[in-house]
Amino acid sequence: MLLGIDIGGTKVAYTLAREDGEIVARSRASTPQTGNPKSDVEIMADAARALASESAGESLTGVGLCVPGPLDLTRGTVVHPPNLVGWEEVPLAAWLEDELRCSVRMENDANAGALAEWRYGAGQGARDLVYLTMSTGVGAGLIVDGRLHRGRRGTAGEVGHVAVDWPGESCACGLRGCLEAYVGGRAWTEHLRGEAEADGRVLALAGGRDRIGPEHVLTAAREQDAWALAQIERFNLYLGRALAQLAFTLAPEIVVLGTIVAAAGDTLCLDPLRQYVADHVWPHQAPDLRIEAAQLGEDLPHRSAVAVALALGEED
Amino acid sequence: MLLGIDIGGTKVAYTLAREDGEIVARSRASTPQTGNPKSDVEIMADAARALASESAGESLTGVGLCVPGPLDLTRGTVVHPPNLVGWEEVPLAAWLEDELRCSVRMENDANAGALAEWRYGAGQGARDLVYLTMSTGVGAGLIVDGRLHRGRRGTAGEVGHVAVDWPGESCACGLRGCLEAYVGGRAWTEHLRGEAEADGRVLALAGGRDRIGPEHVLTAAREQDAWALAQIERFNLYLGRALAQLAFTLAPEIVVLGTIVAAAGDTLCLDPLRQYVADHVWPHQAPDLRIEAAQLGEDLPHRSAVAVALALGEED
Repeated sequence: MLLGIDIGGTKVAYTLAREDGEIVARSRASTPQTGNPKSDVEIMADAARALASESAGESLTGVGLCVPGPLDLTRGTVVHPPNLVGWEEVPLAAWLEDELRCSVRMENDANAGALAEWRYGAGQGARDLVYLTMSTGVGAGLIVDGRLHRGRRGTAGEVGHVAVDWPGESCACGLRGCLEAYVGGRAWTEHLRGEAEADGRVLALAGGRDRIGPEHVLTAAREQDAWALAQIERFNLYLGRALAQLAFTLAPEIVVLGTIVAAAGDTLCLDPLRQYVADHVWPHQAPDLRIEAAQLGEDLPHRSAVAVALALGEED
Repeated sequence: MLLGIDIGGTKVAYTLAREDGEIVARSRASTPQTGNPKSDVEIMADAARALASESAGESLTGVGLCVPGPLDLTRGTVVHPPNLVGWEEVPLAAWLEDELRCSVRMENDANAGALAEWRYGAGQGARDLVYLTMSTGVGAGLIVDGRLHRGRRGTAGEVGHVAVDWPGESCACGLRGCLEAYVGGRAWTEHLRGEAEADGRVLALAGGRDRIGPEHVLTAAREQDAWALAQIERFNLYLGRALAQLAFTLAPEIVVLGTIVAAAGDTLCLDPLRQYVADHVWPHQAPDLRIEAAQLGEDLPHRSAVAVALALGEED
């Protein structure tokens, strides 16, 4: 049996699956926050063992671990995960291998999401896939020629920081013009709050400037509010620029777009993105590139961690 | 033995090599231009057989073919190579397999150059490499996780058409803002001829506006001519933008830059590019990315075709 552990900021998702990837049991619990990483890991290991005990005697052969934030793959450590108090350079995979006595593979959430959408979701059967997380930040996982591409020290796929304008908006990362500075959930929300019209529909829906979020823009845009539509057009423009760059560089079969795009759907987001890319690559390239919303939704944490476990045997 | 055939606009380079890649014989001849592709291929096959006869009885096990311009890898055809009169959708690999009675692998010159610099040149031992041809046009070959990445229908690596400005200069490809529209040899030459100062050093060196080429700018820049230095600064700016995008997306170990950059050398080109990239990626990424000039120079056609032959056994 395989076990998946997806560590989120507030919840940890545990998943038990067969070697073929079929999920047989799920559980969720609050993310442990003892302030001591070693104790946190012991709590997670206990929860993992409890779920594994449902396997009716079959032994655990591998664990897939899905972790937010940057990993140091050369040292096997979690560098500084957001929302995990006291965690700094934690050798998470090694600690869990000791606790659970089997191989552990660790990936960040963008890479794990790419594996999950590829195995279970929108990208099944694709040879080359780019998965973009579109939530607070923007990151990508790349499947290249049927394998996860992690790049030098695991730093590939930082598509959120590809420049889409020069000099461009300031990004939280310290650079300028980054894709994330336009379409990342945090940056977009700040932009919307700063720009929203005092008498506008979005402001009314949110009930106050400081409450405005992407969801209010999506609602107002569905009602054909002009300002909201203009904001989504801006979102699509910058995301479209990044997608055209990916098409020329990697020529993937499919780009799978996460949260915000999935919520916006075809009319507001995917169709304009497809059109932008078709207009900004060569005519013979456009029909070959599928641009789709992520399919896994709420089940993503479970699928992600199992997909990482399924990749255990593969070459790094 | 392995045989390499590199078809250039004016010359074809033939190369005989051992299975370990060591080159044992070279020849060059004019590119056949009978106007009939079938006859052209027969002439090349004759030259290839003549070189293979130097193998002292060892049989030919594979042929690597290096071809300019777009290939249709799904149909195994050369689409419309520049400078080859009457060639249109020619099934070159299949014809040469019939003529030479062994397996033939075909790649475009960017992919073949990437394989060559990886096997024999600046990128030996790298796991991930990007090779940029920097001549009339700009193209890239990508080695990802130790394998050539061709992408959907072989259209990956068109880094010359990644946008580096919006809306940007018009590109010969019909799009705007493409890297090639700034640093491609043809586009850069046009820009230089249009902008050169009437009393300037570059104009004097070239002996006329219509004779200005990159080599005059390099010469004047080495003499500290301000206008020439500004032109090279512009060249480095746009190329630097594309390299930063590649660093964030693919995180290669090394980017190998061809002709124009290799001619310009460290002071004028490579050092400023390294600095631009260091300033436009995250601090922990910069030390991991090597930016180097191509090493193979005049021997590139021979090495390219053999490197393609060496890749014959590998999965496509």
